[in-house]
Amino acid sequence: MRIDGLQYANWCEKQFRQMRDGDVDAVHVTIAYHEDFRETVLNFEKWNRWFEQFPDLIIKGHQASDIDLARDTGRTAIFFGFQNPSPIESDIGLVEILHTLGARFMQLTYNNQSLLATGCYESEDTGITRMGRQVIKEMNRVGMVIDMSHSADRSTIEAAEISERPIAITHANPYDWSPALRNKRDDVIRAVTENGGMLGFSIYPHHLQGKSGCTVENFCEMIARTAEKYGAAQLGIGSDLCQDQPDSVVEWMRTGRWTKEIDFGEGSADAPGFPEMPTWFRDNRDFGNIENGLRATGLSDAEVAGIMGGNWYRFFTENFGPLE
Amino acid sequence: MRIDGLQYANWCEKQFRQMRDGDVDAVHVTIAYHEDFRETVLNFEKWNRWFEQFPDLIIKGHQASDIDLARDTGRTAIFFGFQNPSPIESDIGLVEILHTLGARFMQLTYNNQSLLATGCYESEDTGITRMGRQVIKEMNRVGMVIDMSHSADRSTIEAAEISERPIAITHANPYDWSPALRNKRDDVIRAVTENGGMLGFSIYPHHLQGKSGCTVENFCEMIARTAEKYGAAQLGIGSDLCQDQPDSVVEWMRTGRWTKEIDFGEGSADAPGFPEMPTWFRDNRDFGNIENGLRATGLSDAEVAGIMGGNWYRFFTENFGPLE
Repeated sequence: MRIDGLQYANWCEKQFRQMRDGDVDAVHVTIAYHEDFRETVLNFEKWNRWFEQFPDLIIKGHQASDIDLARDTGRTAIFFGFQNPSPIESDIGLVEILHTLGARFMQLTYNNQSLLATGCYESEDTGITRMGRQVIKEMNRVGMVIDMSHSADRSTIEAAEISERPIAITHANPYDWSPALRNKRDDVIRAVTENGGMLGFSIYPHHLQGKSGCTVENFCEMIARTAEKYGAAQLGIGSDLCQDQPDSVVEWMRTGRWTKEIDFGEGSADAPGFPEMPTWFRDNRDFGNIENGLRATGLSDAEVAGIMGGNWYRFFTENFGPLE
Repeated sequence: MRIDGLQYANWCEKQFRQMRDGDVDAVHVTIAYHEDFRETVLNFEKWNRWFEQFPDLIIKGHQASDIDLARDTGRTAIFFGFQNPSPIESDIGLVEILHTLGARFMQLTYNNQSLLATGCYESEDTGITRMGRQVIKEMNRVGMVIDMSHSADRSTIEAAEISERPIAITHANPYDWSPALRNKRDDVIRAVTENGGMLGFSIYPHHLQGKSGCTVENFCEMIARTAEKYGAAQLGIGSDLCQDQPDSVVEWMRTGRWTKEIDFGEGSADAPGFPEMPTWFRDNRDFGNIENGLRATGLSDAEVAGIMGGNWYRFFTENFGPLE
């Protein structure tokens, strides 16, 4: 089973076919960065159209069992998420509405301070806000996963502790391996995984040791070391694949509408665009390279199977339905 | 089985308990008259809160089998609908979005011309519009019922013919019995019922012979005559109960935001408010009066059971899911 914990491609039939060619059973797809509620609904509508147009390639994912259905029928299940809480605006009631529409992950922040928590680019991290506590409780109730990939350390640790259900860092790597602002320090990964949460390893070059030049051996060795430290069962892939997106999109991801000045995020004035992906992970057809790389590290077959998808499957099973 | 094909009460725990006291298994509840999409979502949110607060009294209805669940557990299933297409604004993609959120009925017009069809108060009826044809097709596809209660004759007949699935007039009576603008002429009822559609009998006094003074015997006799003409299987109740609403609400129903002048609709300057309900139908506890009245007309037990709920149940079973 192969499940990717995060992608944001410039979707079209080509990628849907590549997911099939790569035996990808399920993908968590970002459908909002800065969108408000109505704009997010337009993104759901766009996907509804694709589900109607490509019923032989993709199905909408509501619960983990939809992955079984997708596998049995040779399709990929698409699960939706937001990298920012902007879709709920200032209205907690929209958590359940958006869950009903299919949202299964929501980041409490995207780099900046939000109404709920502090993003990883702020200089001060004040932790989970008053509204943040209420929204965590509501997300727990309906079965929407708290994703802290772009949040600051204290906020992430507090979220892991406040949440009654496991949380996720869908796409990031250990800071000790590659000290990027977006990668996660030991105490953050520990807080998330000790509470049953998941870490999805990112292949976005800014999160890799040596960036685009990182080898698959180095990446997989890092995963094996992380498995030793936190347990292989809490790990998955969250490739952060932004396939075929023009550079205007990464600028929009970074600046949205919150600034009139350019913010280069993880890039720089010299390299403002999307970085080039490593040669061993160009698109969804390349998951086999990671699987082979993981096997070569000496991880057991069961551990490799878990990291490639089994762990996300278990996590989806436990966290997408209402709290019992 | 008792199912009401339309209510618009000023909901609170009292009415939920009265539905239980009256053995009402399911109600189609109006949640939009003039609301746009975002406002309609707020109404879904309000109901989500009630489902959370009163889980022993009400459940959200998605499909007919939820009525079985409601019966088995002593609760009432609430199905949602709109009396105007304003919730889809000018965006056909919102049909599926709103169906996902739980909408199962939508009127193509509320008295006035809409983007889709002509309302029953307009002087010219130009039938189904270009967008109307597309929206009918989309409603057919996802399983949202076309309700023509407040539409003009030609528009209604065209909708019945264009629609691939049966349509409904959820709340109105035969014009021959009571010549109100909102009641339906023979050819209209025939077009709807011949295509498998349903007529729900209204108890809103403006639709009754003798208005608030109409007797239950007269009302039930009218139903028996209608059954002879169009077949008992195509008939149900759509009480149009607007319990505990202040008169400001009927004014808002009539004028929304489309006029700055007062429009009295079925009322008048002398009687602008809600008319008084007949003594035999004050609230949800009074369905037994109708059931007894129907039995007294000589309709068979099976016919009475169908009109009280069985026919709506069958119709819900066939029309709330995707087109196959």
